[in-house]
Amino acid sequence: MKNVSIDTITQAFVDYCSDDTDARTMFVLQKMVEHLHAFAKETQLTHAEWARGLKFLTDAGKISDDERNEFVLISDVTGLSSLVDMIGSQHEGTSSSVLGPFHSVGAPLLPVGADLKKDNEGATVVVEGFVKDTDGNAISGATIELWQTAENGLYYSQDGAQNDFNLCCSMHSNLEGRYAFTTVKPAPYMVPDDGPVGELFRATGRTPWRPSHLHFIVQKTGYKSLVTEVFANEDPYLDADAVFGVREDLIMDYVEHSDLSALPKDLEVGDKVTLPYFKVDFDFVLVAENTITPEREDT
Amino acid sequence: MKNVSIDTITQAFVDYCSDDTDARTMFVLQKMVEHLHAFAKETQLTHAEWARGLKFLTDAGKISDDERNEFVLISDVTGLSSLVDMIGSQHEGTSSSVLGPFHSVGAPLLPVGADLKKDNEGATVVVEGFVKDTDGNAISGATIELWQTAENGLYYSQDGAQNDFNLCCSMHSNLEGRYAFTTVKPAPYMVPDDGPVGELFRATGRTPWRPSHLHFIVQKTGYKSLVTEVFANEDPYLDADAVFGVREDLIMDYVEHSDLSALPKDLEVGDKVTLPYFKVDFDFVLVAENTITPEREDT
Repeated sequence: MKNVSIDTITQAFVDYCSDDTDARTMFVLQKMVEHLHAFAKETQLTHAEWARGLKFLTDAGKISDDERNEFVLISDVTGLSSLVDMIGSQHEGTSSSVLGPFHSVGAPLLPVGADLKKDNEGATVVVEGFVKDTDGNAISGATIELWQTAENGLYYSQDGAQNDFNLCCSMHSNLEGRYAFTTVKPAPYMVPDDGPVGELFRATGRTPWRPSHLHFIVQKTGYKSLVTEVFANEDPYLDADAVFGVREDLIMDYVEHSDLSALPKDLEVGDKVTLPYFKVDFDFVLVAENTITPEREDT
Repeated sequence: MKNVSIDTITQAFVDYCSDDTDARTMFVLQKMVEHLHAFAKETQLTHAEWARGLKFLTDAGKISDDERNEFVLISDVTGLSSLVDMIGSQHEGTSSSVLGPFHSVGAPLLPVGADLKKDNEGATVVVEGFVKDTDGNAISGATIELWQTAENGLYYSQDGAQNDFNLCCSMHSNLEGRYAFTTVKPAPYMVPDDGPVGELFRATGRTPWRPSHLHFIVQKTGYKSLVTEVFANEDPYLDADAVFGVREDLIMDYVEHSDLSALPKDLEVGDKVTLPYFKVDFDFVLVAENTITPEREDT
């Protein structure tokens, strides 16, 4: 457009796009540009501020590699990742939470009741529960993937001292829908703050800490995949999670036990359990694939 | 926050930031996150779409280097760069336009009337005009930087066959405020479409062409710096500039002449001018540094 102006440039973007553009793509792009332009207008964004924003993104590109993606981290610490999770899980099942950057494909498949603690330092934790549908019926044969930090707050992929897939596994829920494993208590940790996100944190006085958590992906054909995290009730960072991942229904008690009576008797759990240990009970509720997500009134 | 939800997460971001945060920084960040979250909610953005967006940014990081910045290009083709230019130049002077990625610091300082054409192929163009204030008074000693493409649509920094700083110079306006130089007619060109922006263009049926233009930066102590472009009236891409840079007051006639009578007599222009040639008359109007930008009613 020859006469592009502050008031016409948003429509000019839309007019540039072909009528053949996929309708959903066009809708998302139009909304993105509407918000981008409204942001610049409402803030009367200066050229220096614009250049600062571009430097932020350019620096994020420079520090990203196959192991680390600063753009995912930006999405996490601005709440976008959590918001997208919540938008996608407006249903009766277990809440979703952020995937994070530390999920590795290919963790060993272990039997229900397996021991992940092995030689790891830290408090012993037995995690046990059921995979269920929204009517409370057991779901057997669901694939559960677990990954977590060691006691030092590091995932194996961040820590040369840990074996590959340390404190990671996959597991199939049994005929009752049950899963169980022995592990160590995960630790709070800081998201990487040596890049642009760290600068953002320092400029706004934010803390990079995340409360300790166990990561899970639970999947079964016919049900929506669940990506979630389970938090510890007494964690000091529950109210300050840098990536906004905590939901009320994902906070679990770590109950301390000084004898083995709280362990599931019919599973191979307990051989390696040292006293005292913590017990966590957590059930995953999956939503059938064909469930219609209700329309939200506020959107 | 433990109970973060779709409705509370935007405020949660604000609450995370310290009260000590610089007020302008906080205002810009809050507006950015408000729009980011509103975008996700209004589109009910899916996890797959979120992941596609992150891949877009990650790919932009990978293809960027010291010579090429895909983030600037994204800003350009979404109209953000032009919008920020227009927000910053709401005054009586010459319109701003996009800087683009091809400005090089250190071009040789040449006298008024200099010849840039030298051995370059293409139509001869004589560009002449005055630097003035908003009352029409001449501004002498203003620094004018010029850069442009050769006839093949490439800047010297993109084209190993061109000498360093080919078709680039800086120049000081003379006592009358006058500048003048001889050059070649620039050519339309395509913005790089071998990266994520190219994918966006193909998905939306957009053209990557920019109309031909001369780039200028005009600076004088006491006046706001002017970054702009001057376009040719007959260019086929004036209504389709991929980066939304065209403004009505920046479109100039390239007037063809078959004798030297249209050349400034008192300057060293014309020695190397071949017939026929095109004449472009363009005055730069600078705004005094202390001019208050009027508040816009619509913002």
